[in-house]
Amino acid sequence: MHNIDDVETEETLTCLRITVHHPLHEIKNVFQLIHFNKREKHMVEDPLKVGRDTKSCHISLYDLRVSRVQFSIQAFRHFNSSKLFFEIKNLSKKGKLIVNNTELEHLNKVELPKKALVRFAEFQLLVEKEDGESTESFDTFFELARTPPCQEILCAPSMSPIPETGILINACTVPQQCSLQTPVEMEECELK
Amino acid sequence: MHNIDDVETEETLTCLRITVHHPLHEIKNVFQLIHFNKREKHMVEDPLKVGRDTKSCHISLYDLRVSRVQFSIQAFRHFNSSKLFFEIKNLSKKGKLIVNNTELEHLNKVELPKKALVRFAEFQLLVEKEDGESTESFDTFFELARTPPCQEILCAPSMSPIPETGILINACTVPQQCSLQTPVEMEECELK
Repeated sequence: MHNIDDVETEETLTCLRITVHHPLHEIKNVFQLIHFNKREKHMVEDPLKVGRDTKSCHISLYDLRVSRVQFSIQAFRHFNSSKLFFEIKNLSKKGKLIVNNTELEHLNKVELPKKALVRFAEFQLLVEKEDGESTESFDTFFELARTPPCQEILCAPSMSPIPETGILINACTVPQQCSLQTPVEMEECELK
Repeated sequence: MHNIDDVETEETLTCLRITVHHPLHEIKNVFQLIHFNKREKHMVEDPLKVGRDTKSCHISLYDLRVSRVQFSIQAFRHFNSSKLFFEIKNLSKKGKLIVNNTELEHLNKVELPKKALVRFAEFQLLVEKEDGESTESFDTFFELARTPPCQEILCAPSMSPIPETGILINACTVPQQCSLQTPVEMEECELK
């Protein structure tokens, strides 16, 4: 046991609370590599990569429709602010990434708002930021959603990131399942 | 030999031409790990890290005044543009990074203008972007400058990146050597 006098003052960590959903998660077990309900620490200097490749990604999704590296989330600080903010960048050459109502192509990026719905293939990730004090590291905390979280967030206009010239998608035209797949791809999935 | 019919059409690569200067480079050999006058290819997905740590940095500077990871340069694309742009982020907890006239603290970032003077410790790097077609990779090309390149660039106001609330430094008050060290640090350097 350390003497409490000798230990550095503990700082709270900013936490990205990520609620994930996939319509076929029970059949395809796409989240088998995710550690749910457990805080995991990441250094602010390293981009947090999400994708299919278990070697280069910190968060791996077990699905062939996901790119080897699908996207990254990176911490940064605004000028004259000690708070951590995050930026999301699409690293997939094939797939689009939709952040709330903004469509990102390969290498496009936006700042994550406090609450963001990230969509690609049939995945939905609701990313919510809880501010902390440390600027050295941050936590992630994954939770599983059995129903798609899209309905709640997409019709709240203040939740959109502000791209300079990005494509805005009309939130309320998103279909019930909020899926990005084409009908052909849906059939492919169902056949697996 | 490949048959030329079978080979993919060659794309030109965006090149970051980086002219480096350090007042004591001949004595301290701070650039001994840099490959000068040679194009080197980097994948757009990976941040290009510059610092003292040879393991985690792509570009290593041999000087104890440099942080293990001093800064990163990352490619991205603006919405509706096929061109590569670059962002520079200060990853040093101890040292400031000055990009033209803007001072970056830990985790602050700015978009690199077409021509940027990057300064930290006693280093000066003039970074010039030459546009190419590929969005998969880019090149770097390092050259050594025996005289500091600061004078030429710092008095051209259009060359500044545009931070939202960053600290602007009056370019023309930068001393002759454009060095960032305090007098004490200068003495330390001279004693080595």
